[in-house]
Amino acid sequence: MTHAALRRTAYEANMALASSGLVMGTFGNLSVADRGAAVFAIKPSGVPYERLSADDIVLVSLDTGEVMDSRLRPSSDTPTHLELYRAFDCGAVVHTHSEYATMFAQARTPIRCMGTTHADYFRGDIPVTRPLRREEVEQDYEKHTGLVIVETFAGCSCREVPAVLVANHGPFAWGDDAGQAIENARMLEYLARLEWRVRAIAPEAQPPETFLIDKHYLRKHGPKAYYGQRQAERREPRR
Amino acid sequence: MTHAALRRTAYEANMALASSGLVMGTFGNLSVADRGAAVFAIKPSGVPYERLSADDIVLVSLDTGEVMDSRLRPSSDTPTHLELYRAFDCGAVVHTHSEYATMFAQARTPIRCMGTTHADYFRGDIPVTRPLRREEVEQDYEKHTGLVIVETFAGCSCREVPAVLVANHGPFAWGDDAGQAIENARMLEYLARLEWRVRAIAPEAQPPETFLIDKHYLRKHGPKAYYGQRQAERREPRR
Amino acid sequence: MTHAALRRTAYEANMALASSGLVMGTFGNLSVADRGAAVFAIKPSGVPYERLSADDIVLVSLDTGEVMDSRLRPSSDTPTHLELYRAFDCGAVVHTHSEYATMFAQARTPIRCMGTTHADYFRGDIPVTRPLRREEVEQDYEKHTGLVIVETFAGCSCREVPAVLVANHGPFAWGDDAGQAIENARMLEYLARLEWRVRAIAPEAQPPETFLIDKHYLRKHGPKAYYGQRQAERREPRR
Amino acid sequence: MTHAALRRTAYEANMALASSGLVMGTFGNLSVADRGAAVFAIKPSGVPYERLSADDIVLVSLDTGEVMDSRLRPSSDTPTHLELYRAFDCGAVVHTHSEYATMFAQARTPIRCMGTTHADYFRGDIPVTRPLRREEVEQDYEKHTGLVIVETFAGCSCREVPAVLVANHGPFAWGDDAGQAIENARMLEYLARLEWRVRAIAPEAQPPETFLIDKHYLRKHGPKAYYGQRQAERREPRR
Repeated sequence: MTHAALRRTAYEANMALASSGLVMGTFGNLSVADRGAAVFAIKPSGVPYERLSADDIVLVSLDTGEVMDSRLRPSSDTPTHLELYRAFDCGAVVHTHSEYATMFAQARTPIRCMGTTHADYFRGDIPVTRPLRREEVEQDYEKHTGLVIVETFAGCSCREVPAVLVANHGPFAWGDDAGQAIENARMLEYLARLEWRVRAIAPEAQPPETFLIDKHYLRKHGPKAYYGQRQAERREPRR
Repeated sequence: MTHAALRRTAYEANMALASSGLVMGTFGNLSVADRGAAVFAIKPSGVPYERLSADDIVLVSLDTGEVMDSRLRPSSDTPTHLELYRAFDCGAVVHTHSEYATMFAQARTPIRCMGTTHADYFRGDIPVTRPLRREEVEQDYEKHTGLVIVETFAGCSCREVPAVLVANHGPFAWGDDAGQAIENARMLEYLARLEWRVRAIAPEAQPPETFLIDKHYLRKHGPKAYYGQRQAERREPRR
Repeated sequence: MTHAALRRTAYEANMALASSGLVMGTFGNLSVADRGAAVFAIKPSGVPYERLSADDIVLVSLDTGEVMDSRLRPSSDTPTHLELYRAFDCGAVVHTHSEYATMFAQARTPIRCMGTTHADYFRGDIPVTRPLRREEVEQDYEKHTGLVIVETFAGCSCREVPAVLVANHGPFAWGDDAGQAIENARMLEYLARLEWRVRAIAPEAQPPETFLIDKHYLRKHGPKAYYGQRQAERREPRR
Repeated sequence: MTHAALRRTAYEANMALASSGLVMGTFGNLSVADRGAAVFAIKPSGVPYERLSADDIVLVSLDTGEVMDSRLRPSSDTPTHLELYRAFDCGAVVHTHSEYATMFAQARTPIRCMGTTHADYFRGDIPVTRPLRREEVEQDYEKHTGLVIVETFAGCSCREVPAVLVANHGPFAWGDDAGQAIENARMLEYLARLEWRVRAIAPEAQPPETFLIDKHYLRKHGPKAYYGQRQAERREPRR
């Protein structure tokens, strides 16, 4: 992909994010990687979506983390995106301040897998990172935000659960491409609304058995998936 | 009704469902039966509403459950619809992931009949099914989803309470025709919002006396109904 | 006012109500009285707002409660409106199923006067009626709904608190004219949202002192009112 | 700035406020100061936004608090604005009845700084004033509303926390200019929604450490700010 094409893809995805209702003001950012070229494209820092153009998109090296061939400064969250690309098998990363997911991050409470709607997209709870330590905040804060996300996924699959809540901050989601990353961020917000309401009136409610969660996850994502029309569209099982 | 006409009816009803705000993404499906022809028409699996056409609608035999004369695979929930048509006296079935009703399903909490708005449409609580057992999930999952709904109505009337919450999954509603099924699904969501808010601030609040519920239900649905304008529009009492 | 003009007024007010977001489906109704002619005009029963015309509006005698010069049946809630006109000094009555006010009615919980926004419109709590007794429901139900509202205002002023919650049913509001009745119904819903949220997170929160409530109520409604521009617009103190 | 230009600025900002979703009916008002000319411009009392024109804006002397060169009466909250201009270093003041912020005012509960979204705009909790005493309500009520806000900021910075909740009343926010004041009011409402939801499901949740709050506040507002594109846009640290 040319730099111009990668910028165009990232621009269009950032504008789709802006109209998704998941971001407010200049909050939120989305990046798209071209792994073949070892580069990712990200929103510039603090530019309102209504003034954004494809030329404003900033390119960053996946190898060095340095800005390449760009006129603006990248999103202040760029080092977070970089760490996610380094550790996770994904092609796009999105960060929003969507209201219910951000609220769970502020409450440092995971979004439990309480039903089949959740299991259709995420095979298990959406975890919360541990709070960052003082030295992590004061030095290389945004890089440590990425590292603490990666640490959170030590025991679970970043492909089966493609989203996280950063403690007292907000959600990040990812996917094979920008469309999937945005869809995961939208579903995350929807599931946060459901789970918030369950907790508000039935705090003692228990999650379903694992066999129900697996059934729904695997009927959409596993090698024996039978949801939808075309075999070709089926993704490999996430591991 | 010709197959084309049945497809057209099901297509239009699915599009009305899509614009009702009760479904999200490719979630949700609606079917319409032609009992004279022993066939029902249902949404294909995983096709986004914006790309759906009447020709995509799938026809299924009410006798055998087999697909007839169709080019796409039916909704993965088709065996659930089939069991409902076999057991219940209804002409249309709708499944949504509407937010508050789905939340009650996830909390495995019935939507109680707390007022006259509820009683105008449903003569009593909206029940929750028991959770499915492992073997029911692992073999013929969607068929068992239908059977557990039917089991839930062993002691109550599927005509007087035309909706149910499937545990950790979501709501199903039905009616004499597609318009009535969608209206019941909309009212279900509205009533779920009311009841959720009652439970959040007044968990000890008690339902009204049965004579108030019966009064409202029967002034719209009974043989002595006096709501509305035309005698001819009154439906028979539901049993 | 001619019958046609009264019908036109009631028609336009019902349509304004329909677009206010306070009613759903065919729920809700509004009436306007012409006290000089001893008649009030009300929405017909069960007619969807989108099919309503001015000629459909039903006229009812304030003296006898009988329908006059009309082709349709009046709202089934007509006897409730009649009792309110007989007991209260008001020119319009509105009944909605607005979500938060209806929820308070279902929880049989008054909407407390917790702040100055409330006191600008209502000088005190919005009360809930007692539940109707079996015989009141089974005989002349809608008339008894009106009588129990009037009974609720035995100790307080229907002018200073122009709204009520009927237990397990929903809100009624009134005013000097249709515009004021709709405004009161809108404010009631707004205040119900505020108070519901206070109760959800701070159930022990206490109302403000009476002198603050009186200050705000009287700076808009008393003989020394100083809110707004024109002396002529000031209403008499409500008693 | 000429009086006409100041009126135009205040008019446009009041109209922007009206379309922000933060006010309802005639509630809410915004003023803009021209400190060089010792005057501020404010919305007239009780005039609906849809009928407002720039010529209706009322000018008030910052020195004497008297109306200057105007045909209408100023907002009844004018003495509150005056006290804020006298005590605080700000160029615009806005008062709304936005739903969640007003609810916190009614519950007399501060909006805690629970996350980085909050810290991006406010360096700490949004405080609640003490309730006014009887004599403060009965004499010069609106002036005392201003004085109690100023009293609330005795121990904290009106620049680092540019908003307050007046007990049982509602929020006021301010900023260097009208755009910043409205943005602060919008963020206040957003943060109130987040914090309300945290309190509803996790009342025991604790705020983040101060070093995280400072990090986010200072990366946008401090002398070493690195958020956004242009050095020139960076404001001085608030004190």
